Amino acid sequence: MPGGAAWASSSFTYCVGGLNVLNAIAGAYAEKSPVVVISGAPGRKDREKDPLLHHKVKTFETQRRVYDEVTVASTVLLDEQTAASEIIRVVEAAIHHKRPVYIEVPYDIVDKPIPIPALQHSDFSIQHSDEATLAAALEETRTVLACAKQPVILAGVELHRHNLIEPVLKFAESLNIPIAADLLSKSVIAESHPLYLGVYGGAMSSSLPCRDYVESADCVLMLGTFITDMSMGIYTAKLERTRVILATTEQLRIHYHTYEDVQLPDYLAGLQNLAAQNQIENRKSKIENPLPPFPFTHPNPHEEPRPLAHSELTNPLTMASLLHILSLHLDENCCVISDVGDALFGAVGIRTARRAEFIAPAYYLSMGFAVPASIGVSMAAPNLRPVVLVGDGAFQMTGTELSTAVRLGLKPIIIILNNDGFGTMRKIRDGSFNTTSRWNYGKICELIGGGNYVTAETKGQFDGALQSAMGSNTLTVIDARLPRDDMSPQLKNMTLEMAKLRRATT
Amino acid sequence: MPGGAAWASSSFTYCVGGLNVLNAIAGAYAEKSPVVVISGAPGRKDREKDPLLHHKVKTFETQRRVYDEVTVASTVLLDEQTAASEIIRVVEAAIHHKRPVYIEVPYDIVDKPIPIPALQHSDFSIQHSDEATLAAALEETRTVLACAKQPVILAGVELHRHNLIEPVLKFAESLNIPIAADLLSKSVIAESHPLYLGVYGGAMSSSLPCRDYVESADCVLMLGTFITDMSMGIYTAKLERTRVILATTEQLRIHYHTYEDVQLPDYLAGLQNLAAQNQIENRKSKIENPLPPFPFTHPNPHEEPRPLAHSELTNPLTMASLLHILSLHLDENCCVISDVGDALFGAVGIRTARRAEFIAPAYYLSMGFAVPASIGVSMAAPNLRPVVLVGDGAFQMTGTELSTAVRLGLKPIIIILNNDGFGTMRKIRDGSFNTTSRWNYGKICELIGGGNYVTAETKGQFDGALQSAMGSNTLTVIDARLPRDDMSPQLKNMTLEMAKLRRATT
Repeated sequence: MPGGAAWASSSFTYCVGGLNVLNAIAGAYAEKSPVVVISGAPGRKDREKDPLLHHKVKTFETQRRVYDEVTVASTVLLDEQTAASEIIRVVEAAIHHKRPVYIEVPYDIVDKPIPIPALQHSDFSIQHSDEATLAAALEETRTVLACAKQPVILAGVELHRHNLIEPVLKFAESLNIPIAADLLSKSVIAESHPLYLGVYGGAMSSSLPCRDYVESADCVLMLGTFITDMSMGIYTAKLERTRVILATTEQLRIHYHTYEDVQLPDYLAGLQNLAAQNQIENRKSKIENPLPPFPFTHPNPHEEPRPLAHSELTNPLTMASLLHILSLHLDENCCVISDVGDALFGAVGIRTARRAEFIAPAYYLSMGFAVPASIGVSMAAPNLRPVVLVGDGAFQMTGTELSTAVRLGLKPIIIILNNDGFGTMRKIRDGSFNTTSRWNYGKICELIGGGNYVTAETKGQFDGALQSAMGSNTLTVIDARLPRDDMSPQLKNMTLEMAKLRRATT
Repeated sequence: MPGGAAWASSSFTYCVGGLNVLNAIAGAYAEKSPVVVISGAPGRKDREKDPLLHHKVKTFETQRRVYDEVTVASTVLLDEQTAASEIIRVVEAAIHHKRPVYIEVPYDIVDKPIPIPALQHSDFSIQHSDEATLAAALEETRTVLACAKQPVILAGVELHRHNLIEPVLKFAESLNIPIAADLLSKSVIAESHPLYLGVYGGAMSSSLPCRDYVESADCVLMLGTFITDMSMGIYTAKLERTRVILATTEQLRIHYHTYEDVQLPDYLAGLQNLAAQNQIENRKSKIENPLPPFPFTHPNPHEEPRPLAHSELTNPLTMASLLHILSLHLDENCCVISDVGDALFGAVGIRTARRAEFIAPAYYLSMGFAVPASIGVSMAAPNLRPVVLVGDGAFQMTGTELSTAVRLGLKPIIIILNNDGFGTMRKIRDGSFNTTSRWNYGKICELIGGGNYVTAETKGQFDGALQSAMGSNTLTVIDARLPRDDMSPQLKNMTLEMAKLRRATT
């Protein structure tokens, strides 16, 4: 899932701080991460004659107006009397929409006592579906499912954001319906779950069988799913509307029509009830166990990854082998954090052992996300060991944030996918703009005064480096030297398929 | 002057790039630097059904709306027919207002031919003053100046932005009126000019005589000056309105009244004419040469800085001695670039030899400005050698941008004012938040694969380091180790005066 932990708050200096973190908050908006942004600001009296105070841009309104474009609610605490209710209002908006909100605090209100109103439930918490519409939508869903021979669930990131994984799992388990995730929601469902198929994303799917199963299903239940160009594999996904039921916090669409006033939690609870009460005729008898006939051959997601053979230890490291070796070492105490580029495409193919341990900006795609995110993960879930996959280009953007990890005693494992430049961009359009400066990554730990650094050019070296990093209690930077034109199987597949599409259209 | 070179353009990726550079553009707006922002964007057809394309935040309008808050004009090139005239419109706004503008280019218009309209002069270039109002304003100015016994000019940064230095210099030279600059406009006037007094900024002035002269003047001509809290020394400046004539691109104010519809260039040309035609009665005879009686004793700005004595070479380096030693090495081929904090306050006291060779974000005060700015200066003026003053805290924000300097073969001299944390903030309010990570700055050159690194703990070491950096053709990082609680004379003065103000008001 994207955007860091399920909840975050960020506080900073007026404008010079606030406008610098805008992109991170925009990413949280795009990917539905609730963040409470708290900004310092000039005092209330200072604003009266609109003087030029340092850090001011156009007017004292500028920063708030900018943040209005990337948040669902904002307030400037200009009045003690309303301050508390304003804070409640915007925080409730963050809870409801799972998106960022903005609170601006003039410095001269910071130490003032404010009256606290009796806490009321806001409008948000009492939103209900229209009962008749909900019943009609469930009835149509029941009919569609009863006729389906090969249904599948695409579990989206909203299930995680809105804490709706349980009803979907119960529904799927009652009826034995396989579940796929998408790029943004990978690991919303535990990847070891027997019904879990893998990541679906057109040509970017984690495996061919997973892709085939979803694309040949006669009913695709997209639950809490963002339909984005990325999650749909840049137009390579094949999900015709005649096969799709799409239920999100924003809409409920069955094939070509839409039901208004149906809340996602009510709809999912309804599905769970239908299944529990055996109201979906014969569903169970049709596919008693969908998995045995399911043609998993390459690779079988329910098989342990193949151990590394002794004979291949001295083979050069490639993206494919790096991802394979990584999957041998990951356990439920790890959280894989992918940056943008092949770090993300490749990560689609990694199997992780339990829910909520994969994080990537898989829709907003802002480079430089992963290293700072590893600090966020460490602070929010100290029991998780962050394992960062980051390209060399992205590492140069934010890699020195590791000095914060050193200062705070955190111990992420950073795997730099070092292919000497912006590798994924080279596949799209090559040119001198894909060149990065050449860093001696070995010096990063010396610069920031902490951590171990190791290079890996062969499979055996990478395996050893990872084993030693996992065993140690120290921040570790692994400089994985990859061939310049190497890429993950997922990116290779995407590149081939997009080339085919281009040929077909020209 | 702030915000980098007089002209700049910046191009980037939609949202993930654009929102990341917003703060830099906001700083350019605040300090009146014209920048043409060019952003890539989704294609025109892609926008039709408002799909979720990667990098999109709220709507396809989001980025343009955000930029509207920090620019004077914006356009999205959606139509070939109007594209050229739209580009002309926004670029002319940048030229007129000397502030940033925004051009968004959907990727599917990039290769399209566009019709170029016959170039017309825009409305901006034909703005004129109301003649009668201009005459009245000049007549009142003439009267005020004729009565003045000790007039002074405060030359503001707009003189540089709007290319209006010449009429002001001619006017001042005709009438022998001394000229001070402010924090934002330091070196708008050549500091070696015989009429140049120094930097005025209340308690932050470059010298006590300069401050005394301005504050005891009976007519202060503030020409093209931003009146900000910073340039006024955080409320320590004493410039009563009864003594002030303020002429900027936005207003013309004499004492307590304002003249509308007077353009700054016309007013300054009028002043120059009045002086040239000897229309300001007796002015010359009153103060034939204002400089001899001018009580410059400490230090005399027209004297060369004192050379370093052999006996003090082993004394520990301090901010005051660092600034003194720096002034011994600067010549007209250098451009001093200050970051925020004592790098800026201290720099007020440095004498530079000619116009346009001091750059600092002296109003917007965004930390981390100086190292990237040195790359901008090198690209815009390859004949200038950037000399960067940057605190250790600010260096940690953007210092690795030096790898771009290495890649491009640039050779700035970077002086890290290393006092182990946010030193200026410690003086305002101390706490653990002023702690930075401890970097081994010596490793930065090894990390980025270029440049020399040297430490300096004594005056002699710093002098030697600077001499060797100036003599070499290599990027050099000087790690200037300063006592933790040391500060520049300017900051010390500010701190004392503000403490006095606080005592007086409590």
